[in-house]
Amino acid sequence: MTLDHVTDFAPATGAFADDLRARLPAATFRDIEARYLEEPRGRWAGADGLLLAPETVQEVSVIVTAAAAARVPIIPYGGGTGLVGGQVAGDLATPIILSLERMTKVRRADATENALTVEAGVILQHVQEAAEAVDRLFPLTIAAQGSARIGGILSTNAGGVNVLRYGNARDLCLGLEAVMPDGSILNGLSPLRKNNTGYDLRHLLIGAEGTLGIITAATLKLLPRPAHTGAAMMAVRDPAAALNLLNMARDRIGEGVSAFELIGKTGLEFLAETMPEVRLPLGTPDWSVLIDLGLSVNGDPAAALEDLFAAASEAGLVADGVIAQSEQQRRDFWQVRESIPEGNRRIGSVSSHDISVPTAAIPDFIAEGPGVVAKIGDFRINCFGHVGDGNLHYNVFPMPGRTRDDHDDQRGAVKTAVHDLVHAHGGSVSAEHGVGRLKVGDLERYVDPTKLAAMRAIKAGLDPAGIMNPGAVLRRGT
Amino acid sequence: MTLDHVTDFAPATGAFADDLRARLPAATFRDIEARYLEEPRGRWAGADGLLLAPETVQEVSVIVTAAAAARVPIIPYGGGTGLVGGQVAGDLATPIILSLERMTKVRRADATENALTVEAGVILQHVQEAAEAVDRLFPLTIAAQGSARIGGILSTNAGGVNVLRYGNARDLCLGLEAVMPDGSILNGLSPLRKNNTGYDLRHLLIGAEGTLGIITAATLKLLPRPAHTGAAMMAVRDPAAALNLLNMARDRIGEGVSAFELIGKTGLEFLAETMPEVRLPLGTPDWSVLIDLGLSVNGDPAAALEDLFAAASEAGLVADGVIAQSEQQRRDFWQVRESIPEGNRRIGSVSSHDISVPTAAIPDFIAEGPGVVAKIGDFRINCFGHVGDGNLHYNVFPMPGRTRDDHDDQRGAVKTAVHDLVHAHGGSVSAEHGVGRLKVGDLERYVDPTKLAAMRAIKAGLDPAGIMNPGAVLRRGT
Repeated sequence: MTLDHVTDFAPATGAFADDLRARLPAATFRDIEARYLEEPRGRWAGADGLLLAPETVQEVSVIVTAAAAARVPIIPYGGGTGLVGGQVAGDLATPIILSLERMTKVRRADATENALTVEAGVILQHVQEAAEAVDRLFPLTIAAQGSARIGGILSTNAGGVNVLRYGNARDLCLGLEAVMPDGSILNGLSPLRKNNTGYDLRHLLIGAEGTLGIITAATLKLLPRPAHTGAAMMAVRDPAAALNLLNMARDRIGEGVSAFELIGKTGLEFLAETMPEVRLPLGTPDWSVLIDLGLSVNGDPAAALEDLFAAASEAGLVADGVIAQSEQQRRDFWQVRESIPEGNRRIGSVSSHDISVPTAAIPDFIAEGPGVVAKIGDFRINCFGHVGDGNLHYNVFPMPGRTRDDHDDQRGAVKTAVHDLVHAHGGSVSAEHGVGRLKVGDLERYVDPTKLAAMRAIKAGLDPAGIMNPGAVLRRGT
Repeated sequence: MTLDHVTDFAPATGAFADDLRARLPAATFRDIEARYLEEPRGRWAGADGLLLAPETVQEVSVIVTAAAAARVPIIPYGGGTGLVGGQVAGDLATPIILSLERMTKVRRADATENALTVEAGVILQHVQEAAEAVDRLFPLTIAAQGSARIGGILSTNAGGVNVLRYGNARDLCLGLEAVMPDGSILNGLSPLRKNNTGYDLRHLLIGAEGTLGIITAATLKLLPRPAHTGAAMMAVRDPAAALNLLNMARDRIGEGVSAFELIGKTGLEFLAETMPEVRLPLGTPDWSVLIDLGLSVNGDPAAALEDLFAAASEAGLVADGVIAQSEQQRRDFWQVRESIPEGNRRIGSVSSHDISVPTAAIPDFIAEGPGVVAKIGDFRINCFGHVGDGNLHYNVFPMPGRTRDDHDDQRGAVKTAVHDLVHAHGGSVSAEHGVGRLKVGDLERYVDPTKLAAMRAIKAGLDPAGIMNPGAVLRRGT
């Protein structure tokens, strides 16, 4: 099955654009600014585009229906924070850039229902606030939450630090409204917890990165807000001990374990070097973990963490530890973890990788990584991340006195070596960020061919004109 | 988009069957028995079929590849416990009945990974036991767990009493191996928690009821086994109070609330009448709930339930209650709940409904139901079920002295009236059991037309010959 015939796109100019102007409110049309043609890492740049910012799902439908008829490609645009180039196409002549920025209504928040219906343009932080306003929690937390919009978050199935407890974006979505590639409106907003009436289009659209339709609104799952929070940092013997400690924590504390982050020595050394203002409660142990708890009314996080530390000490898993005695101290612990990416930026990585491996494979993967990378050159490795999900940030840095630019010619080899090792351990080369345009080749290299063939058949079936975010996820013409 | 051309199927007889005999081990071929041509409710019966029981995914692939080339339809067969006729087709001349009963290996159980990989033919109870053998919990619990097989459970996205805490079958599945409709093998077994590499075929195959491929193995999520369990029955003022009590329980006890079942007076009266040996701890209150807790090492279920009861009494939500003082007493409480379906059978329902509504709509739905049904005739209603999921068993019975047969001519009208009311409240006419052949018409009546069109496009894209479980979920020729 090929889509060769769909590479002949029409631009969103001339009579096509005039016709849309006649049918949509003037406010839908916005001057294109540079930010719509860029992405955070600067790898792709769009040349041009017709920027449309519809306010209603009906307006989205008008645009997509017209585009499908005229074969005009559409790039859906959320908060613009994606890291894999899903929101920028450089190889299309004047595509429609369809921004959800004006669809920002909170349609319904219901504490009895434990559900929240928001439009796709609502910024994640506002989703969290809307949940809090009805005394509930929307637990998805990512670094870009001040600008990422929920439509983009669902389209890329974003993750973050609380996946261990609450799941990925897809696990927090009960229903979707979307405009399909032919312009028809999918009315799938629903707070139902049990509904076995046909194929699950929600999960197909989530993570499809705008290639199968445009998410315009979502019904999200709300959770009880933990009444008591707590945190501890513990130095562990090695990554295997961190895994055992996590299982021990879940046995003793149940689902109250909200986050469990592994921190390697290199990351702490980078902080000591570049951000000495960040206090390191345990110094720079080889391996440590940050454990975060959120317990209900009758829970006592500090007592639970003391109990865990005692049991883990007796089992020889932990050597040292400190338990937050206040919310301020808990925030200080998190500041360590959250400063690591900034420390990394100040050092300047040669290559960084958004990967995951089966949790049981983490110790072997971490043990084998340095040998694989050393075959290419001398590097430092900073490995940290969400160990309970097997999702590691695996970043490769120059040795002291050298810079990332010194290794420009080795970057590709480092990336391939790390990805090959991930793949050999049954892991994923895109744990959180998605495929976008950056990892189309990785998908072809690492993903099961039967899966790729099925993806192409689904794409051809739902988007026969191939207009939805062409070139993202699947290569054009394949 | 139509599939009209696919209604010309070939039978699995003659040269086609001979060719398979030459290519597959003799043990693959089994004599067809009546049970493969029947289903529990006796609505459908198959006339004939070539029964194949492959032992490996490669053998499944050989069968499907041959069937796709020859246009021979395939009915996948798990434990045969489905309640909507997904496993029996009466309108096909000698289809392949592909039973997974010989694919019963537990391929891998890993407590560190919290994952279990099993073949599709493993019976649910054996899955639970394999989890327990590595000191973990596989929480899916349904009445048919002694005979239902995991492939069928995933294909129908089964639910059960613990969905409130642990989710439906799809939420407990990390990865799938499947044979696609062209015979290719999807190698998607994986314990990864974070993996954003393309469309989520796992969630598409789960709940597709064998119409998009055959699930041959699955990697399942394991959970910590609760160290302490407890239960209480509480009489509540009305269904709205039950919902408030549930939210209060989750605020106070967090994710430790494993089940929360609403029980109406009628169900208890049926038990008193037909099964007097079942002790009713609270008598026959209008509305009561069964709350089940599973807490971790440091939890105390009885204390948590006492605390909840005190708070709920003060808030005026509960009038009476009893907390299990032993595991035996907890089992006695569950015996009440689990005996209700048998009580129903002894009375004999006119019509029973597997429905769900948004939880916040439960009080209105329950209040309006009797009026809607009374327009058709005089009936008794037994409403009970998983209130936290909005999943109610809504069963309509004859008045005392009459039988279900007296109402044969009203059954259709009752079903339509209940389904229409469910639909008006934004509910689902198939909460747990799926569509099968029973609810194809309901799907066409109640499901969003854009969703149906997308389902047909996906079916046509992945199964262009239309051989996979034809007539289930989607009507043939549409």
